[in-house]
Amino acid sequence: MSVDTICALATAPGGALGIIRVSGPRAFDAVSAISSVRCSAVTSNTVHFTHLVESDATSQHQTTIDEALVTVFRAPHSYTGEDSVEISCHGSRYILNKVLELLVQHGCRMANPGEYTMRAYLNGKMDLSQAEAVADLIASTNQATHQMAMSQLRGNFSSRLAQLREQLLKLTSLLELELDFSDHEDLEFADRSELFLLAKNIDNHITTLAKSFETGQALKQGIPVAIVGKTNVGKSTLLNRLLKDDRAIVSDIHGTTRDTIEDTININGITFRFIDTAGIRQTTDKVEQIGIERTYAAIDKAHIVIWMTDEEPSQEELNKIELLSRNKQLIIVRNKIDKAENSPFTIVKIPLIEISAKHGTHLANLEQAIFEAADIPALSETDVIVTNARHYDVLTRAHDHLQHVIDGLQTQLSGDLLSEDLRQTLDTLSEITGGQITPNEVLGNIFKKFCVGK
Amino acid sequence: MSVDTICALATAPGGALGIIRVSGPRAFDAVSAISSVRCSAVTSNTVHFTHLVESDATSQHQTTIDEALVTVFRAPHSYTGEDSVEISCHGSRYILNKVLELLVQHGCRMANPGEYTMRAYLNGKMDLSQAEAVADLIASTNQATHQMAMSQLRGNFSSRLAQLREQLLKLTSLLELELDFSDHEDLEFADRSELFLLAKNIDNHITTLAKSFETGQALKQGIPVAIVGKTNVGKSTLLNRLLKDDRAIVSDIHGTTRDTIEDTININGITFRFIDTAGIRQTTDKVEQIGIERTYAAIDKAHIVIWMTDEEPSQEELNKIELLSRNKQLIIVRNKIDKAENSPFTIVKIPLIEISAKHGTHLANLEQAIFEAADIPALSETDVIVTNARHYDVLTRAHDHLQHVIDGLQTQLSGDLLSEDLRQTLDTLSEITGGQITPNEVLGNIFKKFCVGK
Repeated sequence: MSVDTICALATAPGGALGIIRVSGPRAFDAVSAISSVRCSAVTSNTVHFTHLVESDATSQHQTTIDEALVTVFRAPHSYTGEDSVEISCHGSRYILNKVLELLVQHGCRMANPGEYTMRAYLNGKMDLSQAEAVADLIASTNQATHQMAMSQLRGNFSSRLAQLREQLLKLTSLLELELDFSDHEDLEFADRSELFLLAKNIDNHITTLAKSFETGQALKQGIPVAIVGKTNVGKSTLLNRLLKDDRAIVSDIHGTTRDTIEDTININGITFRFIDTAGIRQTTDKVEQIGIERTYAAIDKAHIVIWMTDEEPSQEELNKIELLSRNKQLIIVRNKIDKAENSPFTIVKIPLIEISAKHGTHLANLEQAIFEAADIPALSETDVIVTNARHYDVLTRAHDHLQHVIDGLQTQLSGDLLSEDLRQTLDTLSEITGGQITPNEVLGNIFKKFCVGK
Repeated sequence: MSVDTICALATAPGGALGIIRVSGPRAFDAVSAISSVRCSAVTSNTVHFTHLVESDATSQHQTTIDEALVTVFRAPHSYTGEDSVEISCHGSRYILNKVLELLVQHGCRMANPGEYTMRAYLNGKMDLSQAEAVADLIASTNQATHQMAMSQLRGNFSSRLAQLREQLLKLTSLLELELDFSDHEDLEFADRSELFLLAKNIDNHITTLAKSFETGQALKQGIPVAIVGKTNVGKSTLLNRLLKDDRAIVSDIHGTTRDTIEDTININGITFRFIDTAGIRQTTDKVEQIGIERTYAAIDKAHIVIWMTDEEPSQEELNKIELLSRNKQLIIVRNKIDKAENSPFTIVKIPLIEISAKHGTHLANLEQAIFEAADIPALSETDVIVTNARHYDVLTRAHDHLQHVIDGLQTQLSGDLLSEDLRQTLDTLSEITGGQITPNEVLGNIFKKFCVGK
């Protein structure tokens, strides 16, 4: 099958510069046709200043499209593993469209989303889980999501899976040994006990990985926090304080305008997402009943509940909020501590943070309490957290197959049936890194979520 | 004065890739401190794959921020003329912010808008008018604005100014010759006649350039077009047709989402801008009187007036619209030619285009008529069109000074007074290319309109 040469804009439109990527067998010819760089003759990994030109075949007239830098990467020393060129143009919409148009005229086609990374995978530059990490890395907006994606890109997940694979192969060979000696009845019990322990151990690792998906999802989407309490206790003021403080930090570095992510804050590199804040913002809410229903809904969706009050709660109120927040992390916040009557609360069981939302007093204490309530384990650069629904699905299925093996070992199932389940466990796990040949359809689904140009 | 090292994101945030530019004496050290590339040791114009890392000074621990490409440009072979590095990272907001943060920690500062190009100018890589063309080039959205910017960037304006300067210097030396021989009274008349013709000729060139500003502005901002006519003649349908056709073409190339420019179309590389379309869109306009006032205002601001009708206009109506559109390009459009009763109009004087907006019939004829009404001279790649208000201002002032010379030559003003005016003409003209030392304040004003990273 002959391979197409693909081209795409790899940067967002609208900047000072725009990068166009070209990859495939005709990449050098196509770029040489619109510039003065003889791509096939120059050293790999070198950059060349050139004019990009459009030539009129009949009149021999050349129109200059841009002054640009052209970087040449010779196969296999490129991102895709193919002959590749990156063209750094001025970021004008007209210029970028024109250059893409010319490349298409010279035998390239527009790349599909993720097609560069798919080619990198198909050419053995990375495994499938690493390829998926590329998309996560690009989408990462805070330290936690960045670290999870980087760990996966650097192959920590892959090597963890390789270890599991090794242990599964060991289990397989022990089982085959058992089959070979199956006439020696006295050997059976001892072997199966060892097999059982080994299988259990592997399964523990697989379920630990699968369980990490919950943390991974929370970190990726932001940990949901609900702010609840009676009207006029200062919920809206607190929300604005928390959001504003965060915004201010992020906008420090100009030139990198932040996409507006509504109602999220970043504490120690972790994103927290305030839910159902529409009710809080509508301070003119007339029917209080609506507010109460909203409160129930918000608590339901939250991991962390911040209950705000400006007066000592009655035992009844306290019981009610604790009941509503069961299985949640509850933080009680006493607001308006700047006000005159400052008798201490008598409740002590639950974290109680005393603040003044209006004056911003002790907000750091509250942020620390929110961070601690998230209960995220400290992540090191080599930690593996599953963040991808496909990986979670694979791990769950692998666990099911392995569970058959474990059950079978206890019910004295015959060795060849166990072997079949073991093989399925192995095959299933290998779907993550794409070790088995992955059907085009599956690959298509994985890469279509990527952005174009990557 | 020691020069700062500057850094900035040169691409728009949100793509697969982001390019960070570093320029100045500490550029190599700063990038070497966060990567494994020894910038000062590698060959200029080479690209290096590396991990970008954050090092903890106390724990010696390194955190990987990204896998990136680093391109090294050694002074003076860079855009700015300084030691420069371009870092191509994944386009994650977190990563880009982090890398900029690290660069600042290692002695760089965030660049101001246009600061790279200002340095290119200060280091003699381009003159001031070329530097200004860079911003125009990046902002160019169609063939016309692109071509004007490219012509200016490639120095066509600068060399035209150099020719004028040469002629002004010739005029100066002739005048000095006259001063030397001022005791020979018989020489005077002949000299002054030659001087007068030469001055007039230079002035013609200057005024031609200044006049081109009107065309330049029209091309840059889009030529204003008004669609007027009675209610229900199909103005809104036509507008949507024209806009939609254009949108479809532009969105052909995916990956390059077009910024939404309201109500402009592109015909043969020139942008036309429909004005006061709010009235057209509000098809439920109740008070027709408001519509009529709007019509007057729209015609007033337009260069081209499209008057739509679906029935033969009376002579009175025709007289009225011609009066309103005096000094404008008037196009009469007969709509609904698909309807039954199709007796030809008897009016012929004015361009009459017959269309069906609903069915899109003969819209190409209308677009051609609009294009011709714009009366834009065919631009070649070397044509000089003034597009910059600063340049227009300079040319106008230079013309005023030269006019003093011309007047003085006619009124037999003394040679040394003429010399002074000539010197002022020369000094003024040189403001465009920045030949004279340009005050910091002026430079600041020019470059603050640039985007960051350029």
